[in-house]
Amino acid sequence: MGKNRLEAFSDGVIAIIITIMVLELKVPHGASMAALVELTPVFFGYVLSFVYVGIYWNNHHHMLHASARVNGKVLWANLHLLFWLSLIPFTTTWVGENVMAPLPVALYGVVLSFAAVAYYILEKCLISCNPSDHILANAVGKEYKGAVSVVLYLLAIPLAYLHVCAAYALYIICAMVWFLPDRRIEAQMRS
Amino acid sequence: MGKNRLEAFSDGVIAIIITIMVLELKVPHGASMAALVELTPVFFGYVLSFVYVGIYWNNHHHMLHASARVNGKVLWANLHLLFWLSLIPFTTTWVGENVMAPLPVALYGVVLSFAAVAYYILEKCLISCNPSDHILANAVGKEYKGAVSVVLYLLAIPLAYLHVCAAYALYIICAMVWFLPDRRIEAQMRS
Amino acid sequence: MGKNRLEAFSDGVIAIIITIMVLELKVPHGASMAALVELTPVFFGYVLSFVYVGIYWNNHHHMLHASARVNGKVLWANLHLLFWLSLIPFTTTWVGENVMAPLPVALYGVVLSFAAVAYYILEKCLISCNPSDHILANAVGKEYKGAVSVVLYLLAIPLAYLHVCAAYALYIICAMVWFLPDRRIEAQMRS
Amino acid sequence: MGKNRLEAFSDGVIAIIITIMVLELKVPHGASMAALVELTPVFFGYVLSFVYVGIYWNNHHHMLHASARVNGKVLWANLHLLFWLSLIPFTTTWVGENVMAPLPVALYGVVLSFAAVAYYILEKCLISCNPSDHILANAVGKEYKGAVSVVLYLLAIPLAYLHVCAAYALYIICAMVWFLPDRRIEAQMRS
Repeated sequence: MGKNRLEAFSDGVIAIIITIMVLELKVPHGASMAALVELTPVFFGYVLSFVYVGIYWNNHHHMLHASARVNGKVLWANLHLLFWLSLIPFTTTWVGENVMAPLPVALYGVVLSFAAVAYYILEKCLISCNPSDHILANAVGKEYKGAVSVVLYLLAIPLAYLHVCAAYALYIICAMVWFLPDRRIEAQMRS
Repeated sequence: MGKNRLEAFSDGVIAIIITIMVLELKVPHGASMAALVELTPVFFGYVLSFVYVGIYWNNHHHMLHASARVNGKVLWANLHLLFWLSLIPFTTTWVGENVMAPLPVALYGVVLSFAAVAYYILEKCLISCNPSDHILANAVGKEYKGAVSVVLYLLAIPLAYLHVCAAYALYIICAMVWFLPDRRIEAQMRS
Repeated sequence: MGKNRLEAFSDGVIAIIITIMVLELKVPHGASMAALVELTPVFFGYVLSFVYVGIYWNNHHHMLHASARVNGKVLWANLHLLFWLSLIPFTTTWVGENVMAPLPVALYGVVLSFAAVAYYILEKCLISCNPSDHILANAVGKEYKGAVSVVLYLLAIPLAYLHVCAAYALYIICAMVWFLPDRRIEAQMRS
Repeated sequence: MGKNRLEAFSDGVIAIIITIMVLELKVPHGASMAALVELTPVFFGYVLSFVYVGIYWNNHHHMLHASARVNGKVLWANLHLLFWLSLIPFTTTWVGENVMAPLPVALYGVVLSFAAVAYYILEKCLISCNPSDHILANAVGKEYKGAVSVVLYLLAIPLAYLHVCAAYALYIICAMVWFLPDRRIEAQMRS
């Protein structure tokens, strides 16, 4: 089974997710600088989530690029990942409207954790579907970044109740860890 | 006539349908757990419809993958299917806002029935357009799953007036029946 | 210059246009049959516009399928067509909310006229970019359907002020005329 | 690494950006000509932004068409460009609702400046990723149009506070300068 349509559909869904978040940047009433400044937290929430969805797109791109085949399980593992990503605009907006409230900040981490787990499941499905694909298997074999980021998200959830800013710091650190696309796969493909 | 653009357009429309439903998960006022819990029925409606649209995408993917050609009739049969799928966000939101009301739950089944019939018509058009395509013809020849699910949807419509939960149960059972992509086609292609 | 990205971008825009119209099918307050019945005019407006946008997608598909090359002029002629198509959700919603008012019904025809003219311009640009492409040139050479439909739209605009239903009838007739994809091109390609 | 998915994802995001702007053309209350005329500034804002996003899509198309390869840096430079483009619907709506207010008109220029800089960065990343690609390197080597337009946007920002219409004039002039796709690249590819 070809992977082209899986990629095309995922591109479509991720493109919509990344773009509908901007619809939550509601145009302020009036044209004053004060009205614009009030949007700052929503704007930074948008930037953070844009980076996260961009990271997922980039890594999804690399992982599927390294896979030769997909099967029915991969299709559903992919839809499962897209489901959790599709909740990011919701949590982003809620955080943007309640910047210092613990629950929205914790929920942001919950959704990111599920997305990270879904990404991990998709990875496993792709490897079991491409058993002899050494590029993919070797490259993602030591999945330390994924494990580290799940741990960080799970830490951020209770931390949001102790100190909201510390939870934000963890989300930003995690985004930085993932910022670079998976160089291991790229390195494997070149060698 | 090539099928690439038909697939690309369908991917685009289905990606939008599956994603705009999340826009109905309106961010709650306030940041309390109670406000979040109130969203539970809307959330489960979103999950159910996400699974249904995912099922249609998966089966559409498999069916077109097994077809070599498309013609003008197929283009319109496909648009007809997309039309009914495009109504799923509407019925999902209505059900989510009126969880125990019979009419929205019945309408949900009406739209699913029309989508199932549209899928069946698309299948017939594809077979008549690819008459010598034994993979497709043999594979979908005994279309019992489609028939069973139409019967279940039609049962769910009156049932919604008798016992709303029984109608929901039928929708969930039906989604489970379809959960796995059409293994018959996959099996045929391998053999 | 390849035509793949032009097709992909057009597919994306048309997919969004056809799908965002359904967002205007606002979920009724309450779960009564009366509330649902009130949506009937908006629903029929949605069906009519879905068919129109579907017609444009189908014909766009056929025309580009018959073209080997595109150039800078074609890119802009295509964006020009997409611009007018992008106004259809706006006029559809306005008609749906003011079913018997002449101005919205007339504006619906104005936008359809501009879209038809834009389609004609795109056709001319494609022919001048593919001068030796006999399939395309012969097939669209006698563009009677396009001319007829522009005349019908232009008739519908004043008619909306005399008798709204007559204008609707013209829009429906026009959609029927275009319903079948351009069989001339299909016939040419087979021969 | 192939560029197909980068193109497909960018097409998706740009298609959504260009289309969601039309959602801000809110249907007027009532069906009078006066209500329609009130939409004129919003409509012209939509036209201007449609042209700008169309220009970016066209130039993006040409630039990637001339590139053979992409790498991780290009993926992020591309997402960076898409980020600034995704803010255009926001600034367009704000300008449309406050046509003669300096701040929204200035912010429109700020976002265009950042988008122009992001485009320039993407160009540099593509050239460094395709070092021996003379078509691309020669063609974009003398990037005068990009520099001129950034200067014009930066001029328009203070000008919005002195004379709003002069700022609009600069945006319109700039759009005209960019209206034609990058003929240098096209010319290089033909020779």
